[in-house]
This record gives sequence, structure tokens and C-alpha cells, in this order.
Amino acid sequence: MAGSSFGTIFRITTWGESHGAGIGVVVDGCPAGVSLTDEDIQIYLNRRKPGQSRFSTPRIEDDKVRILSGVFEGRTTGTPISLVVENNTQRSSDYSEIASYYRPGHADYTFDEKYGFRDYRGGGRSSGRETIGRVAAGAIAAKVLSELGIEVFAYTKSIGDVSISMDNFDRDEIFNNMIYMPDKDAAVKAEKLIDDMRNDLDSIGGVVECTVKNMITGAGEPVFDKLDANLAKAIVSIGAVKAFEIGNGTEASKSAGSSNNDSFACDENGHIYKKTNNSGGTLGGISDGSDIVIRAHFKPTPSIFKEQQTVNKNGENISINIKGRHDPVIVPRAVVVVEAMTAITVLDMILLSMSSSVDKIKKVLGK
Amino acid sequence: MAGSSFGTIFRITTWGESHGAGIGVVVDGCPAGVSLTDEDIQIYLNRRKPGQSRFSTPRIEDDKVRILSGVFEGRTTGTPISLVVENNTQRSSDYSEIASYYRPGHADYTFDEKYGFRDYRGGGRSSGRETIGRVAAGAIAAKVLSELGIEVFAYTKSIGDVSISMDNFDRDEIFNNMIYMPDKDAAVKAEKLIDDMRNDLDSIGGVVECTVKNMITGAGEPVFDKLDANLAKAIVSIGAVKAFEIGNGTEASKSAGSSNNDSFACDENGHIYKKTNNSGGTLGGISDGSDIVIRAHFKPTPSIFKEQQTVNKNGENISINIKGRHDPVIVPRAVVVVEAMTAITVLDMILLSMSSSVDKIKKVLGK
Amino acid sequence: MAGSSFGTIFRITTWGESHGAGIGVVVDGCPAGVSLTDEDIQIYLNRRKPGQSRFSTPRIEDDKVRILSGVFEGRTTGTPISLVVENNTQRSSDYSEIASYYRPGHADYTFDEKYGFRDYRGGGRSSGRETIGRVAAGAIAAKVLSELGIEVFAYTKSIGDVSISMDNFDRDEIFNNMIYMPDKDAAVKAEKLIDDMRNDLDSIGGVVECTVKNMITGAGEPVFDKLDANLAKAIVSIGAVKAFEIGNGTEASKSAGSSNNDSFACDENGHIYKKTNNSGGTLGGISDGSDIVIRAHFKPTPSIFKEQQTVNKNGENISINIKGRHDPVIVPRAVVVVEAMTAITVLDMILLSMSSSVDKIKKVLGK
Amino acid sequence: MAGSSFGTIFRITTWGESHGAGIGVVVDGCPAGVSLTDEDIQIYLNRRKPGQSRFSTPRIEDDKVRILSGVFEGRTTGTPISLVVENNTQRSSDYSEIASYYRPGHADYTFDEKYGFRDYRGGGRSSGRETIGRVAAGAIAAKVLSELGIEVFAYTKSIGDVSISMDNFDRDEIFNNMIYMPDKDAAVKAEKLIDDMRNDLDSIGGVVECTVKNMITGAGEPVFDKLDANLAKAIVSIGAVKAFEIGNGTEASKSAGSSNNDSFACDENGHIYKKTNNSGGTLGGISDGSDIVIRAHFKPTPSIFKEQQTVNKNGENISINIKGRHDPVIVPRAVVVVEAMTAITVLDMILLSMSSSVDKIKKVLGK
Repeated sequence: MAGSSFGTIFRITTWGESHGAGIGVVVDGCPAGVSLTDEDIQIYLNRRKPGQSRFSTPRIEDDKVRILSGVFEGRTTGTPISLVVENNTQRSSDYSEIASYYRPGHADYTFDEKYGFRDYRGGGRSSGRETIGRVAAGAIAAKVLSELGIEVFAYTKSIGDVSISMDNFDRDEIFNNMIYMPDKDAAVKAEKLIDDMRNDLDSIGGVVECTVKNMITGAGEPVFDKLDANLAKAIVSIGAVKAFEIGNGTEASKSAGSSNNDSFACDENGHIYKKTNNSGGTLGGISDGSDIVIRAHFKPTPSIFKEQQTVNKNGENISINIKGRHDPVIVPRAVVVVEAMTAITVLDMILLSMSSSVDKIKKVLGK
Repeated sequence: MAGSSFGTIFRITTWGESHGAGIGVVVDGCPAGVSLTDEDIQIYLNRRKPGQSRFSTPRIEDDKVRILSGVFEGRTTGTPISLVVENNTQRSSDYSEIASYYRPGHADYTFDEKYGFRDYRGGGRSSGRETIGRVAAGAIAAKVLSELGIEVFAYTKSIGDVSISMDNFDRDEIFNNMIYMPDKDAAVKAEKLIDDMRNDLDSIGGVVECTVKNMITGAGEPVFDKLDANLAKAIVSIGAVKAFEIGNGTEASKSAGSSNNDSFACDENGHIYKKTNNSGGTLGGISDGSDIVIRAHFKPTPSIFKEQQTVNKNGENISINIKGRHDPVIVPRAVVVVEAMTAITVLDMILLSMSSSVDKIKKVLGK
Repeated sequence: MAGSSFGTIFRITTWGESHGAGIGVVVDGCPAGVSLTDEDIQIYLNRRKPGQSRFSTPRIEDDKVRILSGVFEGRTTGTPISLVVENNTQRSSDYSEIASYYRPGHADYTFDEKYGFRDYRGGGRSSGRETIGRVAAGAIAAKVLSELGIEVFAYTKSIGDVSISMDNFDRDEIFNNMIYMPDKDAAVKAEKLIDDMRNDLDSIGGVVECTVKNMITGAGEPVFDKLDANLAKAIVSIGAVKAFEIGNGTEASKSAGSSNNDSFACDENGHIYKKTNNSGGTLGGISDGSDIVIRAHFKPTPSIFKEQQTVNKNGENISINIKGRHDPVIVPRAVVVVEAMTAITVLDMILLSMSSSVDKIKKVLGK
Repeated sequence: MAGSSFGTIFRITTWGESHGAGIGVVVDGCPAGVSLTDEDIQIYLNRRKPGQSRFSTPRIEDDKVRILSGVFEGRTTGTPISLVVENNTQRSSDYSEIASYYRPGHADYTFDEKYGFRDYRGGGRSSGRETIGRVAAGAIAAKVLSELGIEVFAYTKSIGDVSISMDNFDRDEIFNNMIYMPDKDAAVKAEKLIDDMRNDLDSIGGVVECTVKNMITGAGEPVFDKLDANLAKAIVSIGAVKAFEIGNGTEASKSAGSSNNDSFACDENGHIYKKTNNSGGTLGGISDGSDIVIRAHFKPTPSIFKEQQTVNKNGENISINIKGRHDPVIVPRAVVVVEAMTAITVLDMILLSMSSSVDKIKKVLGK
């Protein structure tokens, strides 16, 4: 339990280093009978692949996924689904220098302290390539959710201080720009900002927002396994995330109760709904039927080309210039990672809620 | 696994409803040999007790804790520690009306949807009294951490838009004002704000910050069980928390890499440290030896005395006026809850890291 | 996770030492809507209470259970059910001597080695009183199973070399004799044997068998969480159990495939069944619809009145004569413990199987 | 959590079907700094490979293992170790008929009931090939244990009614005969018995025994996670195991306390030991420093060539003759599987015990 697994019923276990033989994930507890192909997963992986835009590293990574188990005649069998992506472009030579010092903002130092040594090639286990397993598993979760009529989608909300305007929100726009922003104008400005930061040998942070549509009510457990608590863990477990919000998030701490509370109402069909959604789709940790809305705050890429101060393994204070190919911004490629972790968490909590009452159990057993 | 347990090695399981016979917690996996008395725990519970200030409900709740197991001759034995607080003031009559409708901002509706019915007396399991178990367990975690030289403390950072100034930060001041603010001037303003909100039959949100001093390096697991990810879950699992931050948190998403990265340096004793602490004490999910610094954003108390719109169980749209005794702000009493959840999480991750290398195991086994 | 919890969805956590303030259990994940009273649980506890027959210690233990949470208006709410039994008869004076030496067959030595010291009063956590929590939780599991039409019952199969004859099997006889044997003649012989062992200042072992009737098909997970594997853990986790069998058990290792295989057949209603049940109700770890049949082999009571050799804490080889009140046989009072652990395990595996296919999930969600 | 993971700290997750693309395992929580090569693992896999003797199927299975992650410069890094064995000999045509009916003694029926359909090619997930992942992970566990001076070894104790004699026990003999028996004479008789059963188109069961030498004291948790309880689960989770014993096992239920109790004694060096080992190395679920001794009872191979009665998917009662290549006995190839599961369990429980006292934690932290 060294932390490479996530989830209780729909449980994923990832493995792999950036410059080892490959990266992969085992998905245990996927319900049987869901149609699934390599292509369903590849579509998601392609969204996180580098080289998709001028803001992502031009390394050629094929990232071709193979399903090794758990699918038979095009459907999930209920047994573990093993997915592997081979690392084709292992060029350790690029990374030999970083073995000798601790890069600021990276996990080099903490890995050495924890384990006594580290796989120093390109970040090893703490590389961004670790998210391949998450995204592949998330594609499967999204497929199961879509069978239940539930939809998960994420997008870039802001880059630095350039934020989308909700008035301009256009979901169709998300895939029209290189940074997955649902606001054409903001996207132009944000791309400009990223270019500026790169030219300055620097990097910039940003925010990803994710929405779950057509959510059921009743998912999430009352105390520690609140839906929002598990989403918080899922999101903050993504490398580089420094803050998590649900609903109105940090705004809630400045709000009055009279404006923050969401009133309930009943429509003509007897369907109960909330007039507003400051809660972001949960009450008491349990989904309330409104959209789930969460945000992940990403720090800027720690690998920058400007000169930095650090120490080497001999305890000497040194100046370094990081080389190689590094994106000036993490957010665009992280959009699909946030979407994946959200889908995994939401599905797992739905499955956990199957037995919350004896009436539900009787339905399944036909009793 | 309906979510009433938290932690892997140091694992707590809470139980109890606000108006049932009592509230309690079982702490499994506490290391043997730690001195522990009822009083060690009572001190923490007294900090969350109502009636401590004019901002908290005047209900008389003794909240006397009893240790029922796991301690022998004043020391923990390694077996589960069961703690119980009896609910002495069960006055169900105050709460009979709320059985018929769904209070905005509360979990009434979601509990009914999930379980088919609910214990409607005073919030039942989703009541703030649920945190008694957390705080009691947190007192034990803090005791163990203190044996290891590690200290955890929390305080109010802001109420509404009144925030402490870091220049005025005075840790000694925390227990000098009713709202646990380490800034005398801000405390005066914040108390005025709370009074105003209460007079307006309204409520207000706020932020709690928590710091871990003398933290070891190497706690936290690389991928899903990152120290920050588990802290995020721990904190967001507290009722009313809508956002979690670590280090510079939401600021990171607006920052440049050059200012956000913390440089490493080596002092004359060969000790490696970070010159700044934007990371909040973790890198790659593993503690880096700097202070852990996290923040919890709390929404305003949902029970306000202003008239609100909602629906009743017959599906009728109605206006309600909530009665009873309700604090106009959650934050002051939540300070110790944040401190407790942080202590529990940090200790658990330290225990999990005991076997990260074969050298550590040999040390324990004397091989 | 120091081992005081069991189960994944229906998850129990026990606590308590024999001479502490009390013994108890928290049952998390019990489905909502099941009617439950103190009396439902007390009936089970009374079956393990000492002083029921001349073979069990005459200590007066009231063992009155209280439900402290999780039940409202007579029904389970889905939140954790906390059960407590106070220890009324704490007479530590009887046990002061055993603090100084290690009793053969007991856990005194291993506790000291593991934790550095131990609660030496009457066995502490390793006392037979620890099973109170198991039995109380098992009563709840049995109640839920009965709502699903499933019945669990256990009985004494043998004491020493006196075994029941399957030809004489009479379920109604179980509660007619002091040792819960479903065979009148064998019970007479077994009682005589126990009397003889006691008169000889010795003790004797025995076997408990447990049957699950009207079991559903499809419970149990294919690989590590096989229904039989989890039953094995559940049963061997009971103190004093040295062997576990399912179906024909140890006989299978001497059998030919042609006689060991159970043929399938189909009745006139199209219902598939097995003609024999050597498998004991599971195939590939998954319930096959036949009765679950398991056996637990208990060692003789380690506390005997004959002189024994051992060492004291000063490392001296000494002779001891154990005093106090000790049953000459464990089995009769363990019958209900085996029944309880079986019920808990079977229910948990049924709940885990609720989401094995997307069709089942759609049934619950009404999609 | 569909049951494909085992262990708490040293946690393995297996995947793969007999006729899918491959079989594998992810080992999470392996301590860093242990030297490990493909060859360390291959040695173990070769012991379970078919075609090693005339009693195992002549299918050519290379079963070449590849380490895909978690090892760097010849040492474990503390991150998950992913192991894959490709399935080279996928000949689905051999298995097409069994799609239509339910083989007695196999999991065909229960998989269909649980999941709605099944991968019918050669047993799919319930195939004996599933144990490849267990054995590969067990090889790693054994490597770590050997660093701690602990040794695990298993052997065939009996085939049908041919049992080894403890007087003839010769550990060196284990690898000298095709069935891994540590008794030359018994091996000859057992091989004759297997030949006879095969000639009779039948199969036969047997018993595997496993011993852990130089075990530490203090591993195992007091209540549900007793060392013996987790070993019971580990062993019964192996397909075809119908009974588990520790120490004198089933004999204990026929024994008197005076002969069953193991006396403690102290040698001249002040070292405490047990004069006998009826307990099999645990007391109260915690290792007592004696050898761990357990036994697994295996049923005969269910795939026999004799005609059998069963039903097809149309609900018709039919006679079948199973074709293909099937071993007449499971035990010899299962010896290494029992050894593997024992090593995994023992290591995991040792790692779990690292934090049982605050003194141990201080040793690791150097405080």
C-alpha cells in the first residue's frame, strides 16, 4: 500500500517510471458487460500526449495503449483490466546531469530522503508520464458512467491571471484551441501569456475546472468518504496541484449564509432541485443531483530554463540551468487528467452506494 | 466501509448522531508505549465545545470523554482505544419540525435520497457533533507526534473578508481571543463582523490555517497517497469545507515558475533546506522537512434565522424560519477539528513510511 | 489498521480488553432500513455468555448490550452502529500472578515481544471476551441476511474423538443440550468426555460446523477475495482455531476427481443445481447456490489446572499451577462465534457483489 | 476491490486470463534497496511451469517474466514493480466446446451467474495460470525476507493416502523428484499412485506443507489480522484448496490441553523458546519465534477424462468427455504457489509490525 492504488470498488493501481520499460494501470472492479476497445482509451491518452500544440514538448511519444486482460469479445468481463503503454523514447542521456543535484520544485530530494536513492531518469515515478495510467483508467470509468447517462468534462478555466468569462462560456470551443479553453477570447490572451512566459525562460500556473452532468443523488458516504473529500484526494494527488475547490470553493469563506445556501424547489413534475449550485453538487458529502463542479489549481512547470539556485548531492550550493524539453505550462495537458480522476472517483462512489439500503439490495437480488 | 474510517495504519472509526446516546471513536493502530490520560483528550474536546464564547451556542454540553480500552497503567497498549462522549442534552422536541422539510445547505435531502429515511434530530450523523470523534482521535495523534518532536497547531486566518496580517502574526495571541486568531487587531474586526452578521440573522464563512513544525522528511507516498492528497481528503471531509490549499495554494495557479520554485540550500552543518516554502512542506507528495502549511475554507453556517425558501416532503414549495441555537460562524470551533485531522493524517503517513527501505526495517529488527 | 477491523462494505471494528471498562464493536456499512433492537443482539450474546452450563465458568457476566448509534425509530439508518457491553466484574486481583510469567498456549509472551508490555489482566485483548464484539456484529449481519431469506446456523460437530453421526443429525436438538450438538447420543458421550477431562484437571478440543442455507449464487470475488478465502480468514481469526475446512475439506486431498467433482443437473423448472456438495457451496471462490458448509477446528483450552513448565519474566524456568475459573472446553461457547463470523463474511461478500455487472447497477438506479 | 489485490503494506495486484495477451502482477510497497533481477523471479516461475515432469501438461509455456518498473540499477526503488508474462500459446480452438456447458468442479457456472457471461477460453481468470502473478510476487517477497535472514520453503506432504514420513524427512530430496517430496520412498509410491489415477482417466488430491525458518517474534496483529488468519486467507485463496492447517491443525481438535500446550523454556543465553511447536509458530495470532508451519489441502484436478454428467447453457442434462491436456494432480505445481503466498503474507505482516511501539518508530527516525 505504498500509495499506487486508488478507489474502493472501482480500484486502480498504476505503475511505471518515465524512462523505464513502460507505464500502465490495472483496473479492478470494473462492472462486467461494458463495451470497451483500445480506441476508447486511446482517445483519452491522445489528449494528454505531448506534441499536440506549440505549448507542449515536441518529444515524439506514441503512447499506444494495449488492453492485456479483462475484456472478452469487446466487453468487460468483471476481471481486472490491465493496460500498458510502452516507453519508446527512452533517452537517458538527456537526463544524466540531474542525477547529481536536486531540482527546485521537483521530488528529487524527497525521493532520496525517503528511499535512499532514486531513479533519476526524467523524474522517474514522479514524472508527469505517471498520469498515463490515470487517464487510461479514467477513460474506462467515463465509459461506464456514460452507460449510466452521466457525463464528465473538464477544461482550462484560467492561465495565470487570464480567466474565462462565464458569459462567453462555449463548450464547443474547448477542443478548438490548443489550451482547451471554453472561451475563444480568453484562449487568445492565454496563449499570448504562455508565449511570453516561454520567451522569458519561465513558466506559468493555471486552473482546470471539471463538471459532472446528470449526476445521480445519493453517491458519497457521510463522514470521511464524502464525495467531495474523495474528489479532493483524487485531484490533489495529481502532481503540481496546490489547491482544490468544490462549488463556490474559496468564495464560500467570504460569503454570508443567506447568499451561500442553495434553496430547494419542486418543479411541476414533483422533481426536487436546487435553484442555485453554490454547493457544487454535494450536501453533507452526498451528491444532491445538481452538477458536480470542482477546480484544480496547478502550479507552474517547475522545470524552467532560467538559472536557479540549488544544492548538489555533495551538499554544495550551486547554480543550475535545466536543459531538455519542458512545457511552459502544465494545465492544458492536465485537463484530461482532472477529467479522468473525477470520473474514477465519481464511479467508485456510485458503486459504493449500491448497498446503502436493504431495498436496493433486494432490487439486485430480485427479492 | 460506509466511510466512517480514516487512515491506514493509525486508523480511526467514528460513530454517533447528535441526538443519539453518544458520540465516539475507535483508534486502531496507535503505537504502544505512549502515555495517555483522559485529560490529554479532554483539553482538545474543550476547544470545540459550544458555549466557550458569545459566538457559540449556549447549549450546555459537557462532552466528557471516557477512555474505554487500549490504555493500561497510563500508557497505550497498541490495542484499539475506544473513546466515548455521552450525549447528555438530548432535547428532540426542538427539532421535530425539521423532520418535515429539507433545510437549505444541510444534508437532510441527500440522506433521505441515499438511505430512504433519516435521523432528523439535529442533523443526526451530519451534525457538527460528529467532529467530537475526530478531535478526540486527533488529541491522541498529537500526543504521539509530540513524542517524535513534531508539533501541529491551527488558527483562524480569516472571517469573511477580515484576514490576519502575517506581519502581526503572534502565536501566543491564538488563545487570547474568542475566535483563535493570531492577530489581535484582526480579531477585534472579525468579532465585530460576526456580531453584525448575527444581528442581521445571517452567518459568515472563514478560513482556518494549520502548520506542522519539525516535520520529518520522507512521509507521504508518491502517487495517490501523497501527503498533500491525504491531507486534502482529511480536511475536505470536515463538514462545511469547500476548498483546500497547501503552501501558496490558489496563488500557485497565478504564479511564474521562477518565483514559485523554492530553492534548495545547504547550511554550514550540511543540512539541506528550502529557502522559501511555497510548496507548503511537500514535494512530489513527500514531506520535504519544511513546515507543512495548509488552509481550509469553511462556508457560513447554513442554519440562519432569516426566512428561506425550500420544499417539504410533500413536494410543496414553502418558506421556513429555522429556530433553535446556531452559531453565526463555524470557523472558531472548527480550528481544533482542522488541527486534529492534520495530526491524524501526518502521523498515519509517518507510520506508513516506516518500511520504505530495507535499511529502515533492519534498524527496527536490529539486523 | 492494527487488525481490529474486518470486512470491506459491511465492516466491523472491535475494541476492548477483558478487564477494561468494556467491550464493543462499531458496525459500519450496514444497509439502512433493517429493523433492529437490543434484544436481537442480546439473544446472540446470551449464547456465548459463561455460566450457561456446568462446562462454562460460573463467573457472573451480565453482558448486557447497548446500541449507542445507527438505529432510529427501530430501524438501521445506514450510519455506524456502535454497540457496547460494560465489563461489570473486573476482579484484577485474581490475575495479578500471571503478570510475572508466560502461560503456555496463551499470547502473553507474544504481546510482550510485540508491544514491549501488556495488559496482563485476564488475557487483556487476547481474552475470549474479545469475541463479544464479533457476536454482537454477527447478530446484525444475521438480521440483514434473514431479510434476504438467508439463514446461518452452527453447531458442535465433535468434542475430542466424539463426533456426531450425520444419520442422527437433528437440528432441533442443537439447543436441547449444553454443548449445542445436533445428535442426542453423541451429546451424552461428549458431555461425559468433558467431565472426565475436567476431573483430570485437563481440557479438550473440538470442531464447530456452520451451514448457510438459501445462499445466493455469485457472491465471492475470483482471486484473493474468494468467498472461501475470506471465510478462512474470518474463522482462523477466532482465537484457538487451528484449522479451517470448506465442503469435504481435508478429505478432498485424499479423493479422486471422479468422486470429488459435483455434477450439475437441471430440474423440471429449469433450475440448475449440484447433485452433491463436496465443494461446500463455492466454485472458483464464488457461491454456487448450494449450502455453504465450513468447519473450524478448536484447540483445547490452554488454561488447565495441571502443573505446567514455563519461564517467568526474569528468564527463570519455573513450574506453574494456573488458578481461577476456566472452561475445560472452548467449543460450546464458540459455536455462536463461528456463526457470527460466517454471517458477517457472507453478508459482506454479498454486498460487494452488488456491482459486478452494469445490469445490476442499472437495476438499482432504475435505468 | 474486486479481489485482485492482497496485502496491506506489501500489496500485490494480479491480472490476466489464461488465453488473453498475458498474465501479470503489480507489487506495491516493496521496500527500496533490495537487489532484484528477472532471474530471481524466473527461478520461481520455472518451478510452476508445466512440462517439467510427466505429471504436468506438455504444453509449451515459456512463461518468461519481464520487470517493467520499480527496479533501477539492479535494486528495488520503492515504487511499484510491474511484472508481465506473455501468453504465447493461445490456442482458443481447443476450448471452444466448453463455452456451451458447465464443467463439474470448475467456475464456469459461477462466473456466468456473477457476471452474466464469461471468458470461456481455458478457464479464463479462474485458470491455474492466474497463479503466475502470485509466484512472481512471491519471489520478490522471498528475496526481501532473505535479506532479513528469513527463509520460506514448501514441499509435497502427501498425494492421496501416500504421505511422507517425518522420520525420512530430507529437505535435500525435495528437488530430486518430480513431485517435490522430501521423502524418497514416499515419492516413489506417490508417483506410482499418480500414474495409476491417470491411467484410470482420473485425478487425485494432495497436501502441501510450508515452513518459515528464522521467523521474527511479534509479526501478526491481535484480532482479525492474526498472522495465521491472513495465512489462511492467502492459502485458501489458491484455487482448489479446501482446507488450511497451522501447527498441529486438525489434530488440535482431538487433543488434550496438557499435550497440546507448548511449554516455554529459557536457554543459557537467556533466550526464550518453546519446547514443542504444536502452535505452528503463532500465539494469539502473533509470531512466537518458532517456525511457522502450515498445510494446504488440495482437491484433485477437476478436469478428468472420464465421462461426467452436467448441464449445458440450454438447461439440458448431458454427458461430457473433457478433452485437452490436464495434469492428473494439482499438488506438485502448487508447491511453489503455497510458498509464494506464505512469503507474501509473512513479509506483509512483518512490515505492518514496524510501528507497533513508539520505541520502534524512534529507532527508524533516529530519535
